[in-house]
Amino acid sequence: MNHYYWQKAEENLPKIYEEEIRVASENKILHSGDSFEIDLGNHYVGYFSFVLGYTNMYPDAPVRLSLKFSENRDEADADFSSYRGRLCASWLQEEILNLDSIGEYRMPRRYAARFIKISVLYTPREITLSDFHFTAVTSADKRNLRSFDIADEELRAIDAVSVNTLKNCMHRVFEDGPKRDRRLWIGDLRLEALTNYYTYQQTDIVRRCLYLFAAADCNDTGFLPGYIYENPKFVSGYWFLYDYALLFVTTLCDYYQHTGDAETFLDIYPVVQKQMDAAKKITDENGILSLFNKRDVFIDWNDALEKTVSLNGVYLYTLDRLSQALSKLNHKDAPIYQSRYQDTKHAAYRHLYNAKDHNFAVGYDKEQISVHSVVWMILGGVIDGEIAWEALQNTMKNPQSIKPVTPYMNHYLAEAMMKLGKQKEAISYIKSFWGLMIKKGADTFYEVFVPEKPDLSPYGDKMINSMCHAWSCTPSYFIRALDQDDHA
Amino acid sequence: MNHYYWQKAEENLPKIYEEEIRVASENKILHSGDSFEIDLGNHYVGYFSFVLGYTNMYPDAPVRLSLKFSENRDEADADFSSYRGRLCASWLQEEILNLDSIGEYRMPRRYAARFIKISVLYTPREITLSDFHFTAVTSADKRNLRSFDIADEELRAIDAVSVNTLKNCMHRVFEDGPKRDRRLWIGDLRLEALTNYYTYQQTDIVRRCLYLFAAADCNDTGFLPGYIYENPKFVSGYWFLYDYALLFVTTLCDYYQHTGDAETFLDIYPVVQKQMDAAKKITDENGILSLFNKRDVFIDWNDALEKTVSLNGVYLYTLDRLSQALSKLNHKDAPIYQSRYQDTKHAAYRHLYNAKDHNFAVGYDKEQISVHSVVWMILGGVIDGEIAWEALQNTMKNPQSIKPVTPYMNHYLAEAMMKLGKQKEAISYIKSFWGLMIKKGADTFYEVFVPEKPDLSPYGDKMINSMCHAWSCTPSYFIRALDQDDHA
Repeated sequence: MNHYYWQKAEENLPKIYEEEIRVASENKILHSGDSFEIDLGNHYVGYFSFVLGYTNMYPDAPVRLSLKFSENRDEADADFSSYRGRLCASWLQEEILNLDSIGEYRMPRRYAARFIKISVLYTPREITLSDFHFTAVTSADKRNLRSFDIADEELRAIDAVSVNTLKNCMHRVFEDGPKRDRRLWIGDLRLEALTNYYTYQQTDIVRRCLYLFAAADCNDTGFLPGYIYENPKFVSGYWFLYDYALLFVTTLCDYYQHTGDAETFLDIYPVVQKQMDAAKKITDENGILSLFNKRDVFIDWNDALEKTVSLNGVYLYTLDRLSQALSKLNHKDAPIYQSRYQDTKHAAYRHLYNAKDHNFAVGYDKEQISVHSVVWMILGGVIDGEIAWEALQNTMKNPQSIKPVTPYMNHYLAEAMMKLGKQKEAISYIKSFWGLMIKKGADTFYEVFVPEKPDLSPYGDKMINSMCHAWSCTPSYFIRALDQDDHA
Repeated sequence: MNHYYWQKAEENLPKIYEEEIRVASENKILHSGDSFEIDLGNHYVGYFSFVLGYTNMYPDAPVRLSLKFSENRDEADADFSSYRGRLCASWLQEEILNLDSIGEYRMPRRYAARFIKISVLYTPREITLSDFHFTAVTSADKRNLRSFDIADEELRAIDAVSVNTLKNCMHRVFEDGPKRDRRLWIGDLRLEALTNYYTYQQTDIVRRCLYLFAAADCNDTGFLPGYIYENPKFVSGYWFLYDYALLFVTTLCDYYQHTGDAETFLDIYPVVQKQMDAAKKITDENGILSLFNKRDVFIDWNDALEKTVSLNGVYLYTLDRLSQALSKLNHKDAPIYQSRYQDTKHAAYRHLYNAKDHNFAVGYDKEQISVHSVVWMILGGVIDGEIAWEALQNTMKNPQSIKPVTPYMNHYLAEAMMKLGKQKEAISYIKSFWGLMIKKGADTFYEVFVPEKPDLSPYGDKMINSMCHAWSCTPSYFIRALDQDDHA
């Protein structure tokens, strides 16, 4: 760990705000075997408390309760004991409590929940549960939320759920998912930070997260880990994702673009250089980043996906953004990355683009056709204009092509559409994807959403999926950025 | 609740002392499914803490543990999930913990335990558990423990276990059992207070407990409840046990005898009068206390036992002690109770004693022969000398007679022997009963012990029995009182 960067990160630790959520549930009179559900009316992250009492006779034994916290209806209806997924079952939010005496009980752990099911396992006498309180926590300061109104009702709803998703992921860092995996991941950080610039506008937490990654230990090649732990102590992540490491650079460029904070940019610039040097080390004789194992690149949760084309798109995208930032700073290194951008773009055009078929079915990716490849080649500037738009549409329509499964990848798909000037189509896509989640009951946007595969999970069991996930919060970014452009 | 008495009780709230118990167990390296046991080496009451750590990779999910606290080997080997007893299963000391992060974890509840079994239900990575601490708590101040030595090794061991039992039941009040039922019961209070005069000599806690009962709400007849709750708030008990209500009077007389504190005696005396008046109300035309339901009298955990003879013995015992206390105080009421004692004794001799057979098989108790009847008639002064001793021996030997099942009733049996001058026999009986518990592995004396019925439970399942029980601590009283008499 780099102590200087870590110290800088700690200086930017955000304040946590509390909000008392009114719980509609009335007092309950209960016996052993009884259970009931509390509906908070929305998805919140925070702490739960209640008061244990009794009716006629003081309980002469402890009261044993089970409490199950669920992010949405599906999870509330799931039987946790049937869980067979790959991730640790301890993520499932359930507790067994033994309460020795009457009075208020404040549960010490934080939960992400809309529904709370309370079951009385054992009580010696008739008891009461009452005064249910849910104290929601977030580092998003609602006074900072940029006011926003738009005539389109559906977009207004999508914006509200996006903001709710972001808010519920904002704590000491931009968390990945407040129910499961509270780590800070680069891919999520970038999208949360982007959305934050248009909503809560809290740059301290972005700065903190950038410094936290700057403090992390790189692998032998020089790449940053995909995630870090920061509480109760800083621990560098063990999984190195090269696309994420490159997007760290992009995230810093975004930060500089939105804040003009050159000091922080330059402070972290040595880590940027290390990432760009690492990218060079995995570049082959054709100028293509190909010297990696599939496991070293994320792009999307899709085991079938080949990733060379996409990774090179991420690299080009990063080189482009970095060049722009350095130019704006009149930095001496600007020309280095400008020329590397041009060289790589030409290499990609030559070795990754199948000009005959207007796609990226090339040997590097086992001739695979994927939406991911087209999206990232558009974002990397390898193709553009109507050719790019047709390539994108054809690939999306092609039943054989690999499709995005995460809102994360869908973000980049929408971004590619926007880049091609297809705002109307992008908004329509956002409605059809994120809007559909709302129609199916989402209070916050999910980690994984494939309309035709409602039970899909990257972890082998849907109940462990995160239903409020950082990387899914970007519709607000698109809707608000577009609205801003319209007014400009 | 009588607020004046309650306030006096609160003024006598004892200080709680902490002692760190050295836990021999070394650091453990663990995976999902692993478990291990900690042996504290003795029975303690207190709080447990440990440190969660990891070996190579930081755990990326909460760690779910189960912890089971057991008072003795049998309980440690029992499968709690098979429990089918009548008392609430929540008394069984087991917890499921979800630990979100590494570091020290102090469990908030108090446990009574010698053995702690820790099982790792789910962990995402290899973890460590270490720095096990058990902080024992008691209001017994070891600096007050009267030093005592006796040549007889067996008696020395019995005294040590008695003192340990008392210590582990001394908290804010004399608890019934620190694992199960932390209520204050009169029957237990009396025996703990007696033992306390010869060991820790802490009269403040006795005074507190007397005032707590004085504060309680009596039933329509005027009897005190058998128990009270006092934490987190004062609640009068719902079960009225007439022998216990009478023994409250005896407990106050013991207190005055051992402390000479006339002020407290006289302060509580109105409650004493109320108990004696209540006893009159359940007296029939023969002068016998017989107007009660069997459920209103305790005597012993033995459903078969008839209780009229025993209850009248308790009444006589109380009248005798009360008369003595009032005489010592030159109180105007002394003659009232002296004459009532004589009248009742004669009534008992006439109506409860079968002089032909030297037993108490009378109509009032369905001609039942019980050790209990003989013991209480001896303690009540109805029979004495060699006739009494023979009656006691015959009843104990009689295979048809009802025998004591609790150490509580065995206390009064030993007391009856002592009263008859049979010190040697009483000590021999103490060795054969309490000494046998130690031979079978007891660190503290049990709530229920019948050598030939090791699985006996008044609650339908042995695992809920209390293995450190207030009413079982009296051997120290006998051994030390006898030793004091020898030296006098």
